[in-house]
Amino acid sequence: MNYQRFFDEAIDQLHAERRYRVFADLERIVGAFPKARWRADGEAREITVWCSNDYLGMGQHPDVIKAMQDTAAGMGSGAGGTRNISGTTHPLVQLEDELADLHGKEAGLVFTSGFVSNEAAISTIGRLLPNCLILSDELNHASMIEGVRRSGAEKKIFRHNDVAHLEMLLQQAGRERAKLIVFESVYSMDGDIAPIAAIADLAEKYNAMTYIDEVHAVGMYGARGGGITEREGLSHRIDVIEGTLAKAFGTLGGYITGTRSVVDAVRSYAPGFIFTTALPPAIAAAAVTSIRHLKSSQVERDAQQRQAQATKDILSASALPVMPSETHIVPILVGDPELCKMATDRLLAKHGIYIQPINYPTVPRGTERLRVTPTPLHDDSLIETLRDALVETWTALGIPFRDDSAPVEPVASDRVVPLLVAKSGG
Amino acid sequence: MNYQRFFDEAIDQLHAERRYRVFADLERIVGAFPKARWRADGEAREITVWCSNDYLGMGQHPDVIKAMQDTAAGMGSGAGGTRNISGTTHPLVQLEDELADLHGKEAGLVFTSGFVSNEAAISTIGRLLPNCLILSDELNHASMIEGVRRSGAEKKIFRHNDVAHLEMLLQQAGRERAKLIVFESVYSMDGDIAPIAAIADLAEKYNAMTYIDEVHAVGMYGARGGGITEREGLSHRIDVIEGTLAKAFGTLGGYITGTRSVVDAVRSYAPGFIFTTALPPAIAAAAVTSIRHLKSSQVERDAQQRQAQATKDILSASALPVMPSETHIVPILVGDPELCKMATDRLLAKHGIYIQPINYPTVPRGTERLRVTPTPLHDDSLIETLRDALVETWTALGIPFRDDSAPVEPVASDRVVPLLVAKSGG
Ligand SMILES: Cc1ncc(COP(=O)(O)O)c(C=O)c1O
Ligand SMILES: Cc1ncc(COP(=O)(O)O)c(C=O)c1O
Repeated sequence: MNYQRFFDEAIDQLHAERRYRVFADLERIVGAFPKARWRADGEAREITVWCSNDYLGMGQHPDVIKAMQDTAAGMGSGAGGTRNISGTTHPLVQLEDELADLHGKEAGLVFTSGFVSNEAAISTIGRLLPNCLILSDELNHASMIEGVRRSGAEKKIFRHNDVAHLEMLLQQAGRERAKLIVFESVYSMDGDIAPIAAIADLAEKYNAMTYIDEVHAVGMYGARGGGITEREGLSHRIDVIEGTLAKAFGTLGGYITGTRSVVDAVRSYAPGFIFTTALPPAIAAAAVTSIRHLKSSQVERDAQQRQAQATKDILSASALPVMPSETHIVPILVGDPELCKMATDRLLAKHGIYIQPINYPTVPRGTERLRVTPTPLHDDSLIETLRDALVETWTALGIPFRDDSAPVEPVASDRVVPLLVAKSGG
Repeated sequence: MNYQRFFDEAIDQLHAERRYRVFADLERIVGAFPKARWRADGEAREITVWCSNDYLGMGQHPDVIKAMQDTAAGMGSGAGGTRNISGTTHPLVQLEDELADLHGKEAGLVFTSGFVSNEAAISTIGRLLPNCLILSDELNHASMIEGVRRSGAEKKIFRHNDVAHLEMLLQQAGRERAKLIVFESVYSMDGDIAPIAAIADLAEKYNAMTYIDEVHAVGMYGARGGGITEREGLSHRIDVIEGTLAKAFGTLGGYITGTRSVVDAVRSYAPGFIFTTALPPAIAAAAVTSIRHLKSSQVERDAQQRQAQATKDILSASALPVMPSETHIVPILVGDPELCKMATDRLLAKHGIYIQPINYPTVPRGTERLRVTPTPLHDDSLIETLRDALVETWTALGIPFRDDSAPVEPVASDRVVPLLVAKSGG
């Protein structure tokens, strides 16, 4: 038994499939966002980040940084314990109140990440409901898939955003059986939005519980940043709203909000919540500051939407194959994994533009793409620089430009959700 | 189907069993550690924390706080992406190098928590080794149990620290089958230490892989804080050494170290590593500072051992039932869950001393206890105040003092590891 061999082979397989990932070593630069220093081969070079999920640049907001610094000065660098054993610091308590208010729910609960919040909450809810059937959108995030698996409950996958398919499955289960519908509001690889109202209608009709992941929407949609559910006036019709503090809010951590009972049950029964050190008070305080800011300030949201639209327009005008998207996410079709990797390598090395390739199984084969996330701080001149770099790259590598006779649409979804061992993405 | 009911019932059950947990709302005070402000009923009161896992007080070390502040000022409050998609910041790269060096391993990998590091690494290793058998100590932490379950591998539980039992199971499996032994160095509820050398001998004899959790030892044992494996010169004989940045190092996060191959395989295949936002650079920088400090400074370790010994001596001298412990952890036997809760409530309300009760299933029924963790900053006068408060509480509530005719030992372990839904602890 040569153990090493199995790990080497697992790695070799990724190389063979061109899916081995090398992480770019970055140093973000406050005040110069979206610029960063990129280190490679012993040299540091300034580049422009076009794939950050610090969607609004809040990670460099002076008030947010100051809250982090001041709280570190006053309360130290860590929480010092699990939530139960000395780790519940006052900023965390404030943060949970702030989040409950954000989504108009009775209570909030903070986890060390959005991943853990989905895994812990979905698995616990699924486990506490007797004979629960979980209905899960086929494009749900890996963390939700983990939660579903970990629940031990029976699951049925419904076709992406397909309300008719979901209704068929609900009907089969019947009104009496416990049912939990789990889905996202904004799907982050295509930028499309779930039919939340229709799903809420079905949940009512068939008496199902609903759980929505608003990770790619909180802070960015709704008059106070409460996500798509807020924008569409639907928060009260969804039982559990989950989100992250690590994207538009610019810090770290994840959360759920819901009724006092469901939140208390997850708090009391989820190992992933109980048996781990709490978030540092400095992180919690920074998140509180960021959420409060975005509750009252519309500037960032408006600028993000404006620059996202400008990016779509400017790239499209040069016949770059921008895929349809209803949100701030701008996917650009490449359609081949090797070309996708070559394009991003070239963009970084030649143009100082950093975008990660998005390949199978994160997206279906044949729909490999660049995923661009314009923020309020990607101004028009940066967009034009991006366009020029993309046009040069597309031309040099022979990637197809948009064929105006055919709409740019992903091919039919053959995406295999990585149920066992996730192999890419992230 | 009334969903709310099931959550209410789950909570009611905890109340009925006196296991419903109320979190104390604390504000730690830098410069006054282990003092904190405790908020209850709209009032704030200064108390002394005696159950923090900020074991060395590094969470308030000026250099650690400064590193956090400076890095937040320079790079912002968050990482802005997953490790693969723009979230690998330079301080994280440095942190992984620092950790590999700490344990004398080829590579290190950082996760958002120690919980996630165990869950992700054990499950991925168990999954990549064909037909793997996992041999797991019966007192392993919830995060390791999650990793074992999630691996899908067959598991056998060996009796706590029982090398003869482990050998029997290894023998049954045979040399040819893939085997992974998972265990901890310091068990945090009793403060006992695993027979690491004997386990390494067995692993060699039967050709098994070894995985150790040093969460309650890193920073505190070994000449450079490399844990019990370093202290006993055994680091090179254990394949994977796991630890946390959230206890003695005073920050947040977890990690594994091992050969380049095993670390790269976990990096490439573990959903819990891949699909989540990276730790903020400010946290990584604070952790690097803390680790570096403890690599060269022995002062904190010496003072912690001295004060832990003083605590054991002073409490024992008043016939308080201090349980045997080989480490900095000082458990005091109560032996009844109600009394345990009443004792901690009284200590907090009457004496301003904060210790959490440790009840079943975290420890076996009949061994309910207080778990005291003296740090370098719990000076002799604080220890004497603690003793007086404990004696008053023991007397008032009629908790048995030490009976010198019988040694203070926990009763035979009937601890049921919470395999399905963990119900307490943390
Ligand atoms: C839809 C979705 N949910 C949850 C997460 C996890 O959130 P976090 O990064 O806070 O762990 C992500 C990505 O990271 C995501 O894309
Ligand atoms: C033995 C052990 N391993 C792992 C963990 C988890 O570490 P973290 O708090 O960094 O998630 C803990 C406690 O929190 C623990 O006691």
